[in-house]
Amino acid sequence: MLSVQEARTRIIAGLRPTQAEVVALPDAWGRVTSSAVLARVTQPPADMSAMDGYALRAADGAAGTMLQVVGHAPAGHPYGGSVGAGQAVRLYTGSTVPAGADCVIIQEDVVAGAGTVTLAAAAQPGRHIRRMGQDFLAGAELIAAGTRLGARAIGLAAAANHPWLAVHRRPRIAILATGDEISLPGEPLGPGGIVSSNAHALAALVRAGGGDPMVLPIARDTREAVADAVRALSGVDMLVTTGGASVGDYDLVQGGLGERGFALDFWQVAMRPGKPLLFGVLGGVPVLGLPGNPVSALVCAVLFLLPALDRLLGLPGAAPRSVALPLGVEVAANDHREDYLRATIAPGPDGSDRVTPFMRQDSSMLHVLASAHGLVIRPPHGPALPVGAPVPVIRLDTVGL
Amino acid sequence: MLSVQEARTRIIAGLRPTQAEVVALPDAWGRVTSSAVLARVTQPPADMSAMDGYALRAADGAAGTMLQVVGHAPAGHPYGGSVGAGQAVRLYTGSTVPAGADCVIIQEDVVAGAGTVTLAAAAQPGRHIRRMGQDFLAGAELIAAGTRLGARAIGLAAAANHPWLAVHRRPRIAILATGDEISLPGEPLGPGGIVSSNAHALAALVRAGGGDPMVLPIARDTREAVADAVRALSGVDMLVTTGGASVGDYDLVQGGLGERGFALDFWQVAMRPGKPLLFGVLGGVPVLGLPGNPVSALVCAVLFLLPALDRLLGLPGAAPRSVALPLGVEVAANDHREDYLRATIAPGPDGSDRVTPFMRQDSSMLHVLASAHGLVIRPPHGPALPVGAPVPVIRLDTVGL
Repeated sequence: MLSVQEARTRIIAGLRPTQAEVVALPDAWGRVTSSAVLARVTQPPADMSAMDGYALRAADGAAGTMLQVVGHAPAGHPYGGSVGAGQAVRLYTGSTVPAGADCVIIQEDVVAGAGTVTLAAAAQPGRHIRRMGQDFLAGAELIAAGTRLGARAIGLAAAANHPWLAVHRRPRIAILATGDEISLPGEPLGPGGIVSSNAHALAALVRAGGGDPMVLPIARDTREAVADAVRALSGVDMLVTTGGASVGDYDLVQGGLGERGFALDFWQVAMRPGKPLLFGVLGGVPVLGLPGNPVSALVCAVLFLLPALDRLLGLPGAAPRSVALPLGVEVAANDHREDYLRATIAPGPDGSDRVTPFMRQDSSMLHVLASAHGLVIRPPHGPALPVGAPVPVIRLDTVGL
Repeated sequence: MLSVQEARTRIIAGLRPTQAEVVALPDAWGRVTSSAVLARVTQPPADMSAMDGYALRAADGAAGTMLQVVGHAPAGHPYGGSVGAGQAVRLYTGSTVPAGADCVIIQEDVVAGAGTVTLAAAAQPGRHIRRMGQDFLAGAELIAAGTRLGARAIGLAAAANHPWLAVHRRPRIAILATGDEISLPGEPLGPGGIVSSNAHALAALVRAGGGDPMVLPIARDTREAVADAVRALSGVDMLVTTGGASVGDYDLVQGGLGERGFALDFWQVAMRPGKPLLFGVLGGVPVLGLPGNPVSALVCAVLFLLPALDRLLGLPGAAPRSVALPLGVEVAANDHREDYLRATIAPGPDGSDRVTPFMRQDSSMLHVLASAHGLVIRPPHGPALPVGAPVPVIRLDTVGL
């Protein structure tokens, strides 16, 4: 059986970033750049005042000097002339420092008279001046291709004079839940029936990861129903299925997709929960088959679907970030499957965070997963560990889960 | 001057959560519940099989026993009868366990004959059965009011049979940038002019925080322009201004808003960057006045606007979460203002993360802020600290920034 890392590597290898599209700056938040963003302007565009005060020549900067105020240059209204000996120009934060001047004295350090100021302190050469280009120079690469744009990057692209940005199109992810026993929320439930939760939980995760989910109607438990559900699949970057992928007689997804020419890459991963994961290609569309149990489906989505989305968006598709936290309880030795234990995170006796796996790790218990703060990663054949031993933890509150 | 915590407390105290609205389940991701979500069904709805196998009576469970297979019950198709002595019913993962049976043996542990199975191992009473209600019981509170809905909560609400959820309306945040020197990206730039970055960076942050931003046209540097900009302000939960709030002659925001009846709550906070922060109320609309420097504006937005958004969304409006990380360089003693140092986070000599403030902390340098991983919090009058001392850090990559 494949390891989790091998499975992820094979999934990522089968994916290509989506095409670039141009979006207006305000729509680019959370998107991933498809090309580098270069500065179109120099910032600041000239030497500018960092404070409200007066521009003068440093040679006139001794305390007690009286200067003639020859101009007044609010931000956006530069002084047209040059500051000569014995002269000063009134400036504000963001005003251009006029020609001739090489320092700024703040208004608190002068005494204003009738058309004059007298320096109450010495002016320092260069002080309170933001130099031309100190933030960035025109032509500089400010944001690399393949960067997810946060609010700061949006601000930086704006400052660099970009009303539009080229980003990867949102990957469209079709989601197919299978099962005779499941109904959509609010719809009639049959005997022994349960309400479908996987498709909409996965759709929410796709949205969190920057994709565009498309939830297909539930496919009933026949190969024909599954084959029908994917008959007209188009304009889709990936198909995600849930359920119908385990060992029994009713394993439908491989069979149903097989009728449409599905080529299996791998089936089964040495992990818990989520062993019956499958991956392959159907008519050029990558297919990720997740288990039907809600916990298994969501854990596998964190480990494989979010990295796949990243890759489709032009990011590397790395493993979810983990942090090391000390255990709040001891854990037993692990078998050959990589284990992802649902756990709470709370301060221990010393006040720092500890991670404590739940006693019960049943892969059908969504309520337990929803109240978990993280997943403790237990590697294959990992030894028993005592209280306080550091373990890698995927924090679930940092991935939109 | 107010402390950062006092300022935040006063802002939060002036805000009320927005009204509830009903949204379809798929639209509820990232929203905040306005009432508790109770289970409308019991999950599982009956005792169900956790595996593919056979249901039988534990009394018949000795290895070597041959049983008659009297029924076949796929998930969603419960067996109508009762399992008697010497009988078994074929089940699959998610099948209802039929009346009479009290254990399940997995298919790998039987030898199937013609209408019979012979147990190759002993069956354990209760084994491989998911008990009715083991995940949740009808009527149980699954999600508290005031919870931000992640993908797991969406799945849980689906499983609990909710096609709709009641959530707080997205707060609408009007954003007003002021200045004669600024232009929107791509528009003509005057002499000494710079491209406006604050409004769209803040709009992105509002979106990241779950709000609905509305960027107003730039107001020029007169009181009349500012007063005009807010003349018809309606349907807005908060007005955020940037610029025009510092000490000089061109302090416009207080003056311009004052012409419309603005009531100031406070002005100036003992912090760096961002001292000239103001807060008040204009015709019932809370007004948060941010500084004009891009770094100051964004740092203040993290410290005050995101908590304000949280509060409007029905969350507590707490300070941004910080983590303790060891310093990569020594830092000097701090003065009376709480300092937020832009810093990188990278592994130190021992492989664990260290935080290293940039040498240059100029509040106009957006490029530096965009490349920072976190903000190191230096409390007022904090002592000098050596390399390795733990300091609180707000990670900027966890807040949509």
